[in-house]
Amino acid sequence: MSLVIHKYGGTSVANAERVKTVAKKLVDLKLKGDDVVVVVSAPAGMTDELINRAKAISKNPSKREMDVLLTTGEQISIALLAMAIHELGHDAVSYTASQVGIRTTSQHSSAKITSIDTCKIKEKLAEKHIVIVAGFQGVTANNDFTTLGRGGSDTTGVALGVALGAKCVEIYTDVDGVYTADPRMVPNAKKIHEISYEEMLELAATGAKVLHSRSVELAYKNNIEVHLRSSFVDSLGTLVKGKVDKMEEAIIRGISHSEHEARISILGVPDEPGIAARIFNHIAKHNINIDIIVQGGGIGDHNDVTYILKEDLYEEALKISEEIAKEIGAKGVEGTKDVAMVSLVGVGIKSNSGIAAKIFDAFGKENINIDIISSSEIKVSCVIPQKDLKKAITALHERFIEGKN
Amino acid sequence: MSLVIHKYGGTSVANAERVKTVAKKLVDLKLKGDDVVVVVSAPAGMTDELINRAKAISKNPSKREMDVLLTTGEQISIALLAMAIHELGHDAVSYTASQVGIRTTSQHSSAKITSIDTCKIKEKLAEKHIVIVAGFQGVTANNDFTTLGRGGSDTTGVALGVALGAKCVEIYTDVDGVYTADPRMVPNAKKIHEISYEEMLELAATGAKVLHSRSVELAYKNNIEVHLRSSFVDSLGTLVKGKVDKMEEAIIRGISHSEHEARISILGVPDEPGIAARIFNHIAKHNINIDIIVQGGGIGDHNDVTYILKEDLYEEALKISEEIAKEIGAKGVEGTKDVAMVSLVGVGIKSNSGIAAKIFDAFGKENINIDIISSSEIKVSCVIPQKDLKKAITALHERFIEGKN
Repeated sequence: MSLVIHKYGGTSVANAERVKTVAKKLVDLKLKGDDVVVVVSAPAGMTDELINRAKAISKNPSKREMDVLLTTGEQISIALLAMAIHELGHDAVSYTASQVGIRTTSQHSSAKITSIDTCKIKEKLAEKHIVIVAGFQGVTANNDFTTLGRGGSDTTGVALGVALGAKCVEIYTDVDGVYTADPRMVPNAKKIHEISYEEMLELAATGAKVLHSRSVELAYKNNIEVHLRSSFVDSLGTLVKGKVDKMEEAIIRGISHSEHEARISILGVPDEPGIAARIFNHIAKHNINIDIIVQGGGIGDHNDVTYILKEDLYEEALKISEEIAKEIGAKGVEGTKDVAMVSLVGVGIKSNSGIAAKIFDAFGKENINIDIISSSEIKVSCVIPQKDLKKAITALHERFIEGKN
Repeated sequence: MSLVIHKYGGTSVANAERVKTVAKKLVDLKLKGDDVVVVVSAPAGMTDELINRAKAISKNPSKREMDVLLTTGEQISIALLAMAIHELGHDAVSYTASQVGIRTTSQHSSAKITSIDTCKIKEKLAEKHIVIVAGFQGVTANNDFTTLGRGGSDTTGVALGVALGAKCVEIYTDVDGVYTADPRMVPNAKKIHEISYEEMLELAATGAKVLHSRSVELAYKNNIEVHLRSSFVDSLGTLVKGKVDKMEEAIIRGISHSEHEARISILGVPDEPGIAARIFNHIAKHNINIDIIVQGGGIGDHNDVTYILKEDLYEEALKISEEIAKEIGAKGVEGTKDVAMVSLVGVGIKSNSGIAAKIFDAFGKENINIDIISSSEIKVSCVIPQKDLKKAITALHERFIEGKN
């Protein structure tokens, strides 16, 4: 007998048939003698529907009230899943985050879990109930409802795993694992069977949408394995863990990408201490999220500071950058939309020099111009024209994953 | 400055435009300097939609989980209404029953409010917020979600009025008051400006659906006035209160009716003490609600016991009655569907003899056969064939309200 924690995303509970399928799977586990805790998201489409209701009333609704509104989605899922399990003749009980004491910070729409009171869950597990918990949501010390932001249900799943002392959390979704590249872009992409936390974090941070960074961070910090797998196909997925088996070792684990990015350069920034901090503090104050920063390329005692961000924030960021450029005495600002970012991720990068040279070679053969290149210990990201994205991913996949030349 | 409590039903918050209209009304009150507390129901149609989702999974869903599911409806309304008030530049904060401590008994789907913790509401009123509370729902001592049953939001409104020491609770709905009869049946029906608690209770109990009995009982017990009025038309509605002004005095206050009833008679019941109790305990055990009981009409030491109930419970009730008839040695059971009930209600009935005679006279002229007649201090109910209902209401309205002959 062991403790099993499953998390099901919105597509897995989108309608009555799918809810019943999930219920069946949970009951089978229960019959094997496991203690079962399950986290569910809102039914697919419901969150958008609720957002539309809000938008019909206010262009900029209060974040507190948005959280009151959106937390209804998972509440619907947990009740329906409990009913489906009852229908199969087994005990199940549903809890919202407030009922089960998932305490968070008070930043509405992006709260962080601070603690989980597991008393009630343990009590119900001991009574042989399947315990169903609403994902994505939390409650502040003041009993206000919060949400955890994009991918929040994954984080709920892992946090429950930590609180209950589970070894592994299984995250069921509409894909059957993490791939070496987006299979829609690269038909040859292969499923990754095992991946380290660090690699998964870099993939997620650079565009792989399949698992949210925060849940991986939490798993990393607490050394819980995350098994990402399909709720529709019964196969092993991708295991995210601390050390990857030797068999699975590779220089490059996978290739992620991010479309519809924009680049903004502040030109001729005076080379003074603290000036980059001033620029990015100013931008952060406007809640603009930045994907990459590159500094350098200026002349003499002036630098160019370049950053990459989502295209839809471009106009606002350009205006803000012009303000700050004036304030700090920079020469000017220029930017462009229609860029994309492609990243190579793998722990092997640490010990392999010459990766950048190989990238330049691969892109050169395909006539792809690299706008910016930025690297960390286990990641190399290239900013390229949006139109060349597919070509670029394919070239990198052939060179680094398939081993072609 | 005074405390104002409004309650809005589902049709009043059915869509964004209506939510905005309610918000405007509340802000106007606030600008007059009042403290404003508002209770809202789920948007019209949403509860049915949620029930359909449950029915697609289970024919007989757990009541606990139904309450988890259904309480999302009001939670959506409170968030949207708060946003609409913010949009008008005013402070508002929304609370579910669990957040504001509306404690109830643990009978899921028909819980009773046991206490309300008003701390948070008072604190927010002091900070000049409009306080929005989800109607229809509560939470048990064990933090399980409950619902209060049909008309539960009215009860939430009145209970908040009691807890906060309000003099009056205004209940906004899609009709503009209580009428002397259903205006769809009797075009001459007039709005009742004032009505006593007892009369309102009898009207509600005998079929007037406009205000739920439990909210009136609660108002009665605590002597809070209930003002029932339209959210669409700006006019005075019906004031439910302790003593009705002399000006408003009438023998008959109004006529209620109830369609699609059925009659079941247990014939030849032995005339022994406690036998009626045995019959109706047995029926109550099957959760069958009875509208009227009449005993009498038998011969010698045998009685006939007749009761009226909703038509959709007829088959089940007939079976149960046959069981109990056998058990107690009654002669048999007979029954009929397609009956209706029409009731005259008014405190004047107490002191007026001859009301029954006038009813027989009025019905006689219209050739309407009275199957059963049952009266209390302030009410006379007649069971008649369903097909004669409209004719019967019209005849009684002309005779007792319009004063025609």
